[in-house]
Amino acid sequence: MMMNKSTMTFIGCEEEFDDAKLVLFGAPFDGTTSFRPGTRFAPTVIRNESYGLETYSPYQDRDLEDSKVFDAGDLELTFGNPKRVLDTIEAFTRKIVEAKKLPVMIGGEHLLSYSPIKVLSETYEDLHIIQLDAHTDLRDDYAGEKLSHATVMKRAWEFVGDGRIYQFGIRSGLKEEFKWAETHTQLNKFTLEGLKEAVASLKGKPVYITIDLDVLDPSVFPGTGTPEPGGITFHDLQDAILMFRDLNVVGADVVELSPHYDQTGKSTAVACKTLRELMLAITK
Amino acid sequence: MMMNKSTMTFIGCEEEFDDAKLVLFGAPFDGTTSFRPGTRFAPTVIRNESYGLETYSPYQDRDLEDSKVFDAGDLELTFGNPKRVLDTIEAFTRKIVEAKKLPVMIGGEHLLSYSPIKVLSETYEDLHIIQLDAHTDLRDDYAGEKLSHATVMKRAWEFVGDGRIYQFGIRSGLKEEFKWAETHTQLNKFTLEGLKEAVASLKGKPVYITIDLDVLDPSVFPGTGTPEPGGITFHDLQDAILMFRDLNVVGADVVELSPHYDQTGKSTAVACKTLRELMLAITK
Amino acid sequence: MMMNKSTMTFIGCEEEFDDAKLVLFGAPFDGTTSFRPGTRFAPTVIRNESYGLETYSPYQDRDLEDSKVFDAGDLELTFGNPKRVLDTIEAFTRKIVEAKKLPVMIGGEHLLSYSPIKVLSETYEDLHIIQLDAHTDLRDDYAGEKLSHATVMKRAWEFVGDGRIYQFGIRSGLKEEFKWAETHTQLNKFTLEGLKEAVASLKGKPVYITIDLDVLDPSVFPGTGTPEPGGITFHDLQDAILMFRDLNVVGADVVELSPHYDQTGKSTAVACKTLRELMLAITK
Amino acid sequence: MMMNKSTMTFIGCEEEFDDAKLVLFGAPFDGTTSFRPGTRFAPTVIRNESYGLETYSPYQDRDLEDSKVFDAGDLELTFGNPKRVLDTIEAFTRKIVEAKKLPVMIGGEHLLSYSPIKVLSETYEDLHIIQLDAHTDLRDDYAGEKLSHATVMKRAWEFVGDGRIYQFGIRSGLKEEFKWAETHTQLNKFTLEGLKEAVASLKGKPVYITIDLDVLDPSVFPGTGTPEPGGITFHDLQDAILMFRDLNVVGADVVELSPHYDQTGKSTAVACKTLRELMLAITK
Amino acid sequence: MMMNKSTMTFIGCEEEFDDAKLVLFGAPFDGTTSFRPGTRFAPTVIRNESYGLETYSPYQDRDLEDSKVFDAGDLELTFGNPKRVLDTIEAFTRKIVEAKKLPVMIGGEHLLSYSPIKVLSETYEDLHIIQLDAHTDLRDDYAGEKLSHATVMKRAWEFVGDGRIYQFGIRSGLKEEFKWAETHTQLNKFTLEGLKEAVASLKGKPVYITIDLDVLDPSVFPGTGTPEPGGITFHDLQDAILMFRDLNVVGADVVELSPHYDQTGKSTAVACKTLRELMLAITK
Amino acid sequence: MMMNKSTMTFIGCEEEFDDAKLVLFGAPFDGTTSFRPGTRFAPTVIRNESYGLETYSPYQDRDLEDSKVFDAGDLELTFGNPKRVLDTIEAFTRKIVEAKKLPVMIGGEHLLSYSPIKVLSETYEDLHIIQLDAHTDLRDDYAGEKLSHATVMKRAWEFVGDGRIYQFGIRSGLKEEFKWAETHTQLNKFTLEGLKEAVASLKGKPVYITIDLDVLDPSVFPGTGTPEPGGITFHDLQDAILMFRDLNVVGADVVELSPHYDQTGKSTAVACKTLRELMLAITK
Repeated sequence: MMMNKSTMTFIGCEEEFDDAKLVLFGAPFDGTTSFRPGTRFAPTVIRNESYGLETYSPYQDRDLEDSKVFDAGDLELTFGNPKRVLDTIEAFTRKIVEAKKLPVMIGGEHLLSYSPIKVLSETYEDLHIIQLDAHTDLRDDYAGEKLSHATVMKRAWEFVGDGRIYQFGIRSGLKEEFKWAETHTQLNKFTLEGLKEAVASLKGKPVYITIDLDVLDPSVFPGTGTPEPGGITFHDLQDAILMFRDLNVVGADVVELSPHYDQTGKSTAVACKTLRELMLAITK
Repeated sequence: MMMNKSTMTFIGCEEEFDDAKLVLFGAPFDGTTSFRPGTRFAPTVIRNESYGLETYSPYQDRDLEDSKVFDAGDLELTFGNPKRVLDTIEAFTRKIVEAKKLPVMIGGEHLLSYSPIKVLSETYEDLHIIQLDAHTDLRDDYAGEKLSHATVMKRAWEFVGDGRIYQFGIRSGLKEEFKWAETHTQLNKFTLEGLKEAVASLKGKPVYITIDLDVLDPSVFPGTGTPEPGGITFHDLQDAILMFRDLNVVGADVVELSPHYDQTGKSTAVACKTLRELMLAITK
Repeated sequence: MMMNKSTMTFIGCEEEFDDAKLVLFGAPFDGTTSFRPGTRFAPTVIRNESYGLETYSPYQDRDLEDSKVFDAGDLELTFGNPKRVLDTIEAFTRKIVEAKKLPVMIGGEHLLSYSPIKVLSETYEDLHIIQLDAHTDLRDDYAGEKLSHATVMKRAWEFVGDGRIYQFGIRSGLKEEFKWAETHTQLNKFTLEGLKEAVASLKGKPVYITIDLDVLDPSVFPGTGTPEPGGITFHDLQDAILMFRDLNVVGADVVELSPHYDQTGKSTAVACKTLRELMLAITK
Repeated sequence: MMMNKSTMTFIGCEEEFDDAKLVLFGAPFDGTTSFRPGTRFAPTVIRNESYGLETYSPYQDRDLEDSKVFDAGDLELTFGNPKRVLDTIEAFTRKIVEAKKLPVMIGGEHLLSYSPIKVLSETYEDLHIIQLDAHTDLRDDYAGEKLSHATVMKRAWEFVGDGRIYQFGIRSGLKEEFKWAETHTQLNKFTLEGLKEAVASLKGKPVYITIDLDVLDPSVFPGTGTPEPGGITFHDLQDAILMFRDLNVVGADVVELSPHYDQTGKSTAVACKTLRELMLAITK
Repeated sequence: MMMNKSTMTFIGCEEEFDDAKLVLFGAPFDGTTSFRPGTRFAPTVIRNESYGLETYSPYQDRDLEDSKVFDAGDLELTFGNPKRVLDTIEAFTRKIVEAKKLPVMIGGEHLLSYSPIKVLSETYEDLHIIQLDAHTDLRDDYAGEKLSHATVMKRAWEFVGDGRIYQFGIRSGLKEEFKWAETHTQLNKFTLEGLKEAVASLKGKPVYITIDLDVLDPSVFPGTGTPEPGGITFHDLQDAILMFRDLNVVGADVVELSPHYDQTGKSTAVACKTLRELMLAITK
Repeated sequence: MMMNKSTMTFIGCEEEFDDAKLVLFGAPFDGTTSFRPGTRFAPTVIRNESYGLETYSPYQDRDLEDSKVFDAGDLELTFGNPKRVLDTIEAFTRKIVEAKKLPVMIGGEHLLSYSPIKVLSETYEDLHIIQLDAHTDLRDDYAGEKLSHATVMKRAWEFVGDGRIYQFGIRSGLKEEFKWAETHTQLNKFTLEGLKEAVASLKGKPVYITIDLDVLDPSVFPGTGTPEPGGITFHDLQDAILMFRDLNVVGADVVELSPHYDQTGKSTAVACKTLRELMLAITK
């Protein structure tokens, strides 16, 4: 007689690695979070709660099972040393990219986007980035630290250069960050206005998409470290994802769900649906 | 000297049975709920929290006390046998209908709509149904069970037949369910678009209204078993209810509040106000 | 060697009293609250959580540090005697007004607006009031008590007279209150429609602004004593505050955050941002 | 046809008034609570949750239905005027006592014990009091107020005089209160040690029992306004109640459950069981 | 290149099936729960949170990895039909027993013990049962249903007969149940007193152990459907488990954790440690 | 006119620095916490909630105001670099020690004890340590990191050497840690047994006391990162503190309260009372 161990994946992501188009993985780390921590718990909670969803999307009229996703589970990341954590993610992402598969990371905190962006900027010379976020994340350092959730897009800029980062939904930051962005990034305040044009102009180019879920209004998504009122609706985000079907997306992440501040579970439901729709959109 | 026992009713629903136009009752059962249970607690919590509301509606410029509502309290329903539960509700609804009063049920889970729809479809040959819901609820069985929250509208269809069920706000289900709906129900995806036309076409006909509160976006109504992002706003729902004043409503229910996932109490407040507005609208 | 005691202020409000334009203070009292209490905890929680905000507003392109705010901490208010509480607030507000500074109060319950309105109506003969609120608050007494959260605008009317109170977002009250308002206040139901015109007509006049945060929809702001569905969005409120820059505001308050019903912290984040934007707008 | 309105009582307390030995009533008021409010919600929550209990006590081998309890529901008490509240409770208690029935009050805050003690001290010249409590409650005034949760036993002393109040479990208060108690009350620190002797010495005398549930350790009973570590266990309390069977108890109360700080429901379960055992013990 | 899917087990339970001595499985069902549901979530939460434990027990000076446990994950159980659920568990337990391995079930509700007890009573003619529980669970039916959490030990008695069920910690039930137990089971009220003697008398006999975690006091274990004050401590339970090392245990279960009523996580921590210690004790 | 900014201190700790005997400070850092983070929030929450306590201790018959405590507020510590955090605490502690005052730190995570122990081991050649804790904290590294909550007592041992660390209440760790402790520390499993003797033997020697609050049973103290069932009671802890009055305590800390897992507030109340009693005991 034979019994197999139980596996745990995001709903509908049961492809074997070799046959997969897309590799999903969790990065449970929040060690530089300065306000409310806990995004370390997101990947596990997202997998568990994904079973409240169907695999079929009536928006895209497609089923996640057709997207051929391998769910690699979570990386083992320890606390106390962000640099080592980024190295681990970098090595893992590189394996996925070398196997010609799409990496999609579930955070964890926003700093972690550093690693897939680093790997993909080395793979694709003209990598562009679309960032949906409440915060600029453009500080040069945060209280002396170069590697921080508050500096990650500055670090990303060092990889990809001027004019390559498209920021949407931004509604918080230092005056200096907004000023700096004027000449270095494409920063769009408050809403997703301008995204349609950006998508049109990026057609064919390799694009990395980073969705900091705090871009959503806290009424929609309270379960995050730094809720910032005045954000976009779920409909706005869903519309954005449908637009991404026109892009050549080479990697993506969904970060900053902090489940212990999501007592009702609605933020987690939003994260799950965002992930389903995003994976469908970029594998169409 | 004399003292009376304390009674507990929904605010403003203190009519005696014989004088009542509308009979409100609670059905505290959630035994087939597959994800997060707890709608069994809704009727009690709704009654307690209704005292945060006024009886007067500035929307309809009417007072609930004028609607002559008898609140019958909760049915006694036991767990472990859905069929028996449905029979109990059926018998109770039949009494109300035979007394020429409007039955309004507070769920409990959506399966329970089965019973009032059964009774009313027997009473009114051309009964039509308006369903506001996030989910299709059109499976033929759910893991082998014919009586389930996920199959209830398929069962209702067996009572009323093709083209009689108007579905709005639907955003989750199996591909097969959406396909089946194309030829059997009037399914409107995502929003309430088309409701105005539906109401116009149903004028004069007997209509049953079933409001699964998860039709609302989880930002508005997180306290439910399966929160499904991308739903309608409270304003949308309120507008719909105002439209219902033009219909010949012969019964209604409001289901799927799960209070233990409503830590802030806002979902309960929404359920209470929905119930007040609905009872006012259908007794105008 | 020397160490100073730690001070606790709202973020960016570190001016000394003598140099301040605006004096912020907390009034931790909720003794007449009839439904869910707890607004007494708001001032402390607001100060603590304000550190999740930046001091810079990209909406107004100004920094709170430029508004020269002195945060006076909380008044000591005891329970069991509302009259004494109002007297304490009155005396304190009078000091601020006599020092030619703008008083801004963090509630606490809405009754507390009584005191600053009393002081300012004595200072400015033609004081006008803009009230953003879900509730009329126009009862003459509440179960026999003249001083209550449910009567405060009736009391305010006794200070300022007919046509001087502009009410917006109102969606709950007794029929009599709505009726009475027709000839005594400028009551606008449900939304902020008409605010632009009101602001235009009030230009130059001394205006007191009282923001009962329950004017917001509970999806945005569940953390309050009496959540009333059907409210305005944060964008609506933010737009209103930007309009206030055109007014001669002589005092303001932000009341009715009840933090223990704000498990996720999002209501507190909304209160903090509202306060930042309001203080920036009225000191421009 | 006929239907009766639904009544809501504590489990097993369904006697009619005229046949009752004991009258249970709720006093939902917490207007002088200085720390965490919310005991106003206790009576309703206790009734609802009592259905998690059986009516039969294996400790006393008796059934609550044999105790012949009439549950009178809650008194209507408004906020903002403690004196009026106490008058209402006094009048109601007087009716019960005049009908030769035992009054048992569910608080609400501890101040409310003032009223039944006043009535009973007028009825029974040599009334004695047993107080189980974490706090002395012996201040003469609290920030100027004579009627406060912190002064209630000082007021009770004014009714019954020196040596008549037996205090147990006391572990918090001002130095002056402990000092004053040395010559005026029988104060036992920290535990219930000495209760057995007290009960023996009180045999035959009329005794009022006031149980401030915060006498329990917060591990057992966190759901209260001022949790004070170092309290007694549930076994201790249960043993005390069994001793009360030897007394001539003429009235009692159970106060200071604050349900919104009882997220798990265990404090409410403790309050319910305490109430069941107490009512059984004093009607044996 | 090759990547394996992520597996999810209880900490230290990573043996393959063929090499295992003990098979752990989850039974996520709570369909007959009459009060607070949610034990369906226990197996997943227990696995996730077990990582807060070490695999090494300083109590038994042994490591769980030495117990050779295969964690089979959760059975797929649907709602609405308790009979079918019990059949599924029965079939699965039979496979484990036929493979000569020890079955250990994580509930779910207490009714589920029915199935392993049925299988083992067929395998071992003189099966005895040790039940740690707050409730008798000896009703013959519950509101007409024979299969219920409230009847499970009556059903078990039908399998094993008089004098074979040893009940400890019992403190709630109907008078009739306690009466019936006098001649049919070994019922010990309130505590674990008598367990030592019971264990001595059962030496060598096949024993099934069912731990309804509500035997613990709600101060220790609030996260359960029906918290019953007056229970045992964790030390008591731990001592009992150490005694079980002297028995020939042929199967066991740990039931009735309801994680959504365990906001702090302490009940889950207790369940995890109980499970670790129990598995160590019965595989020594 | 003049107004002072509001200061925020632990109750009764309002001495000026120069006159103080004891300096209390907060260290809000939890960056190496591997399970549930959030001890960063403890110092602020402890100060706010300390107002639920009295300053007078009936246990020690002394008032905290007599202990002459200066509350220095919180250190500014950033995330992402534990080494820098420890340096900041070290520098601050050194100032306190050089000013001949007693340092008492509110954590934060247990790693932070590293810094005061380092400073005091340099000041007092024969420094001894009493550690109350659920966990050994004796790993040499944790996933490669030398500075971790799980290694802190190993680091402390490097400062003070063999036989100088007295560990009590320990009930979790690796087998190797328990083994290592046999020859290097005085490890007492599960309880405080042996503390009386330890205190007697340490009379006159300089002692540092570190209280990891998870030494308490989770029934008493659930609000911590890694709740470990089977711990001591509050009475045990209180007795221990009273014993400390016989020691020459040269520094102390109270760590590992994680307020966001303390929904009821009882853990915070325990932390506050522990701190009050400890400060009284070591300044007698």
